[in-house]
Amino acid sequence: MEPALHPDVEALARLLGRWSGEGEGHYPTIEPFAYREEISFGHVGKPFLAYRQATVRVDTGMPAHAEMGYLRGTGPGRVELVMAHPTGVAEVAEGTVDATPDGLTLRLRSTSVTGTPTAKDVRSIERSLTVEGDTLHYDLSMAAVGQPHQHHLHAELHRLDEAS
Amino acid sequence: MEPALHPDVEALARLLGRWSGEGEGHYPTIEPFAYREEISFGHVGKPFLAYRQATVRVDTGMPAHAEMGYLRGTGPGRVELVMAHPTGVAEVAEGTVDATPDGLTLRLRSTSVTGTPTAKDVRSIERSLTVEGDTLHYDLSMAAVGQPHQHHLHAELHRLDEAS
Repeated sequence: MEPALHPDVEALARLLGRWSGEGEGHYPTIEPFAYREEISFGHVGKPFLAYRQATVRVDTGMPAHAEMGYLRGTGPGRVELVMAHPTGVAEVAEGTVDATPDGLTLRLRSTSVTGTPTAKDVRSIERSLTVEGDTLHYDLSMAAVGQPHQHHLHAELHRLDEAS
Repeated sequence: MEPALHPDVEALARLLGRWSGEGEGHYPTIEPFAYREEISFGHVGKPFLAYRQATVRVDTGMPAHAEMGYLRGTGPGRVELVMAHPTGVAEVAEGTVDATPDGLTLRLRSTSVTGTPTAKDVRSIERSLTVEGDTLHYDLSMAAVGQPHQHHLHAELHRLDEAS
């Protein structure tokens, strides 16, 4: 039986389900690139959503980035993020969730970015994510590999199915 | 098409697939408890395994803990872990992988445990995990909620299917 959504994550309900789309990345240290992406948000009736994401390069079809973690509802308009990256990076962030006429906007800023000894050098990450109807788009900026904090990713995805 | 396993995680190949079993937890601040658990390890041809885990309480059948993250192969006998917990905790660990006659043993010790402002207070985590044939067992110890580092979890799981 499907558990009821926990009240602390009701404001995030429009994220639930699977999303598919495309994005573009750029950074001073790499060539610009395009990617296809799939994202899912699920819940088990507790005050968090489980998030998973994976991308493949448009040019090669090969797996590119992936990440997974949890969004925590922590009070009216507040949200926290805990994310594991296969690059060896652990991202902890907090921010806001705002209702929009037919969706929501999350704004998250890292409070700590830690890593394994061989991890990619990432210092800060900021994310904004908006759902409007059945469209999800996000931007991600970061300070990494000695570069100042700057825009890195933009993507737009569309809903594949309803909340699961 | 199934990608080939990356050479850097070949030593972890026996983890791949799905595992199911039961475990027991104890800690000075809580009543002892028993749980059912499912674990999966997957790969996409890159030098890491993706790990997911979820437990339900034996007494109530309700979702208990969950966690997900990545194991990184970083050199002969070396492994790193990056893990997100829905309790708001991000765990970064490193350790060793040792081949056994028909399996392997991982020993991991946290190098950083960070958290969101409302996270559970966890200071250190140590994990040992052994695969022997189609059996996986692990122990986890931690320092949390003001208590000294001590044993917390033991579980034994059995293989549900082959590597996927």
